[in-house]
Amino acid sequence: MKNIGLVVAYRGDAFAGWQIQKNARTVEGELKRAAAEVTGEPVTIYGAGRTDAGVHARGQRANFKTASSIPAERFAYALNAHLPEACRVMSSFEVPLDFHSRYDAKGKCYTYRIYRGPIADPLTADFSWQVSYFLDVDRMRAAAGDAVGTHDFKSFQAAGSSAKTSVRRVDRIAITEDGPMLIVQYIGNGFLYNMVRILTGTLVAIGSGKLAPDAMAGIIAAKDRNAAGVTAPAKGLELTRVYYENNFIKM
Amino acid sequence: MKNIGLVVAYRGDAFAGWQIQKNARTVEGELKRAAAEVTGEPVTIYGAGRTDAGVHARGQRANFKTASSIPAERFAYALNAHLPEACRVMSSFEVPLDFHSRYDAKGKCYTYRIYRGPIADPLTADFSWQVSYFLDVDRMRAAAGDAVGTHDFKSFQAAGSSAKTSVRRVDRIAITEDGPMLIVQYIGNGFLYNMVRILTGTLVAIGSGKLAPDAMAGIIAAKDRNAAGVTAPAKGLELTRVYYENNFIKM
Repeated sequence: MKNIGLVVAYRGDAFAGWQIQKNARTVEGELKRAAAEVTGEPVTIYGAGRTDAGVHARGQRANFKTASSIPAERFAYALNAHLPEACRVMSSFEVPLDFHSRYDAKGKCYTYRIYRGPIADPLTADFSWQVSYFLDVDRMRAAAGDAVGTHDFKSFQAAGSSAKTSVRRVDRIAITEDGPMLIVQYIGNGFLYNMVRILTGTLVAIGSGKLAPDAMAGIIAAKDRNAAGVTAPAKGLELTRVYYENNFIKM
Repeated sequence: MKNIGLVVAYRGDAFAGWQIQKNARTVEGELKRAAAEVTGEPVTIYGAGRTDAGVHARGQRANFKTASSIPAERFAYALNAHLPEACRVMSSFEVPLDFHSRYDAKGKCYTYRIYRGPIADPLTADFSWQVSYFLDVDRMRAAAGDAVGTHDFKSFQAAGSSAKTSVRRVDRIAITEDGPMLIVQYIGNGFLYNMVRILTGTLVAIGSGKLAPDAMAGIIAAKDRNAAGVTAPAKGLELTRVYYENNFIKM
């Protein structure tokens, strides 16, 4: 028995999210089917996180156990031959038998892209949130700084979430500009359901003046979803990287 | 009568190229239909250049004449309401009655994107050429330098082209790296049919070692399409900008 680790990239708009569902094409479902076809075995896929429908991934991580004699590094190519083009296994490698993509994850990096302009650019529209009003980037950076740290992020959790605790550690929120694109990078030890999208909606509300420049601390203290901004659209979000010990891969 | 200038962006994969055709969706055809619907007049669209099927545009330029009283700046919004989402008029403005997007163009900037990696990234696959073999970027830069200048680019012209002369002036070929992406930017006074794609295929052949590092001068001198490299795929190419006198807009 071997445990095969995967780095997976996909277009969120091509799938009904990560988690397997009946009667809908999901990333987990496609990987499970592809791995079963390649190995001839029933396969369970363990993913690092469940991305929502529409959310893209550049560095999603997953693993599965198999008795197959296919060399670990060849699985990327073998699986891709059975996957839709909108999902690619970018690399595959052997991991210890007790490695689990989700339980062993130490942190994640998400990237949110905001396109600033009156008219959506068709070349980036599938990967960004178009905002036509003015955003004060310095205000957004200051508010982002107020969100960094270990907090109870209950205000930034979608209703109906089942997480045991809403305390999370956000290590970094970096906002950079690339022409009309505003790129917000989040790094933390974990994120609640919709947390990155609600944080982004809140930063945009502060940048536009809809919320006060110093509103972030009060929103966190409120522990109330209604205190925060809107949930930013899924298509602007990308799961960029999952961190593990030992150079990001537990070996 | 007013002359309306447009900056147009579109996804090349959504259209059968720029030029109007029967029984195929083209950018020119969609703009002509949209402008007729908005103005209630038959409209002729003058484009700066005919991009091929699959070639993207961020800064294509076009103009049309109309007796409509719609303010010039509003045409972008009015036309977009009648255009498919894959094509957006990014801005509209009045230009002199004798302005012609093609005849008055002084130069163009094209961008070609090469994704270097064994497996195509689904998030960039629609906008880049995936090359899985090693490319020596320094060799490509040296060869690009050999192509800059005023030359007869007959070797880089697709068969069946009707251009009167194949002499063109290339002002700049800049090659930059952004992670796995190699970005080649071309600026010149004009480009022959398929010239940017054949230049890119030739630079890749030199970068991979299929052609000698100093091959460029000989290929230009040969004036023979067979001397150059392959035509790089359309999907990696973008018409980035068209230059005019007076801050790029003839006023």
